[in-house]
Amino acid sequence: MLQSIYWKNGKIIIIDQTKLPKILQYKVLNNIYEVAEAIVNMRVRGAPLIGITAALGLAQIAYKSSENKESFFVELEKGAEVLKKTRPTAVNLFNAINRILNVAYSSNNPIKSVIEEALNMLKEDIKINQKMAEIGAELIEYGDTILTHCNTGSLATVSVGTALGVIIEAHKQGKKIRVYATETRPKMQGSRLTMFELISAGVDAYLIPDTAVAFTFERKGINKVFVGADRILADGTLYNKIGTLQIAILSKYYSSEFYTVAPSSTFDLVSKKEEVIIEERSRDELIFVDGLQTAPINSKVFNPAFDETPPNLINGIITEKGIIYPPFKKNVINILQQ
Amino acid sequence: MLQSIYWKNGKIIIIDQTKLPKILQYKVLNNIYEVAEAIVNMRVRGAPLIGITAALGLAQIAYKSSENKESFFVELEKGAEVLKKTRPTAVNLFNAINRILNVAYSSNNPIKSVIEEALNMLKEDIKINQKMAEIGAELIEYGDTILTHCNTGSLATVSVGTALGVIIEAHKQGKKIRVYATETRPKMQGSRLTMFELISAGVDAYLIPDTAVAFTFERKGINKVFVGADRILADGTLYNKIGTLQIAILSKYYSSEFYTVAPSSTFDLVSKKEEVIIEERSRDELIFVDGLQTAPINSKVFNPAFDETPPNLINGIITEKGIIYPPFKKNVINILQQ
Repeated sequence: MLQSIYWKNGKIIIIDQTKLPKILQYKVLNNIYEVAEAIVNMRVRGAPLIGITAALGLAQIAYKSSENKESFFVELEKGAEVLKKTRPTAVNLFNAINRILNVAYSSNNPIKSVIEEALNMLKEDIKINQKMAEIGAELIEYGDTILTHCNTGSLATVSVGTALGVIIEAHKQGKKIRVYATETRPKMQGSRLTMFELISAGVDAYLIPDTAVAFTFERKGINKVFVGADRILADGTLYNKIGTLQIAILSKYYSSEFYTVAPSSTFDLVSKKEEVIIEERSRDELIFVDGLQTAPINSKVFNPAFDETPPNLINGIITEKGIIYPPFKKNVINILQQ
Repeated sequence: MLQSIYWKNGKIIIIDQTKLPKILQYKVLNNIYEVAEAIVNMRVRGAPLIGITAALGLAQIAYKSSENKESFFVELEKGAEVLKKTRPTAVNLFNAINRILNVAYSSNNPIKSVIEEALNMLKEDIKINQKMAEIGAELIEYGDTILTHCNTGSLATVSVGTALGVIIEAHKQGKKIRVYATETRPKMQGSRLTMFELISAGVDAYLIPDTAVAFTFERKGINKVFVGADRILADGTLYNKIGTLQIAILSKYYSSEFYTVAPSSTFDLVSKKEEVIIEERSRDELIFVDGLQTAPINSKVFNPAFDETPPNLINGIITEKGIIYPPFKKNVINILQQ
């Protein structure tokens, strides 16, 4: 099973996902600025993996720190600030940073505790994903035709994945399924990463352009959709990769089931919808594909990285604590507090 | 106003649309095989322009022909067969070929008549488009936020365009509008051609990825959609660029109005839905962007070039003979027979 990030004696080693699917290239991140750069430029991406990468970035500060507690806390807070500015939407980033800071401030040996906590989070992520994969796979039946969007596999987490973890687990259990993966413009995580993972796992998988979602429902009989999540509010409102909202609307239109798969670290039980910042990314992402110009250089664009899917379009939220069904206003809290 | 195709003393000169938006490059088509290649590889595209290109291809056969009528008809029929195999969905191609063949067989001077008829079609296309632009622009009001898909401008016709012709006409009339154009994967006609035309016309235009359609309805308040057509059946069923179906579903979901703009040559009053062939194009279109690999080389794909939009999602069909409103079963025939 592919692992997307490693910690080796204070070094953070990532798969540079911008090089996939052509090259499986690893990259060492040597300091908090390299960690931040890797997140901003999406060398690592996927809400859970962004969180773990940030935690390891702070652990690296601890690892390099002298035994001077005061200067360590200054460095740690500075590192946290740098990381918080990388990407605004996925809440796992903020949850991971806060978890590390809380440990630091409550420990008698903060340097050691920060490193231990980050490494625990790394191991925990794999376990949580495996648990979600098993819980979610129970929803998949023999003969299902499944749509997935963006990348939510091993490459979006430490390993296993969220939505793609569920799909691949069902395949491993011997359930005969067919999977359609969207390209996911503009960054093409579906083409570049999801197809790479689906083919590696031996799943019967087909790539479709984002324009073909409705017609694939119509002609290929998609009956279940599994996507990841970048943030889920207490009422079930889902923030996820741009394109999720229209897939959810189409899923309802075609009477398919729509599931999101997310660990509890993806929930934001505090914020209101108006408070969630939806990242808008560079216009260059729409004017160039990997440096190749595809639109007039002076084009204005609207390039939101995420969208907001209302709870009434979601059939269930798969977490490591169980599947949350509507009404989400009641059940999100109930299941997460178990 | 841009013109996408010319006839000069037996030479067919096209804008090679695969080179846009970077280079405005013209290309001479010297024989029926070069005409067919240009259609297959989408150097010319857009249902009306495909029809005119085919007509001029047959005119070129006439132009080169000796006065031997018998060998002319053999060549003409052979040319028609070559052209019919280029692209199966847009009906303008078949309507144009049949129109030229009918003229040839009913004329006392078929060689001269074929050339005259093709040149008439070229001139007629501009007039029809101008008429549709004026009729359609009446539907556009001050302050409208409009979505368009694929390219339906001068580059999809001889000049003026269909849906984009309507939008640009409203802009020329001084109506303040904002336009969102989809990239239109996989061939990116929206990025490459529509943005080029909208910027040239000075329209307030924004490029969005195909994944952002629903969220743009949600956050930017799109209230009208204008698209072209590759074929419209007697009951109003619309065949158009892949992605049209989901835009129509989203338009209804967001209570926007959805219009298609098509000359009467785009109607197929004979075929049933089951008889319409939806072209599936090469897997390479999803694995490469202009030669640049974006997906695993061994990916399986589903790459339909068009989709089928049911009549109940369409608010009106703008033709040169007037706007056809539902019920289409009755009104398509009524308006077209005027």
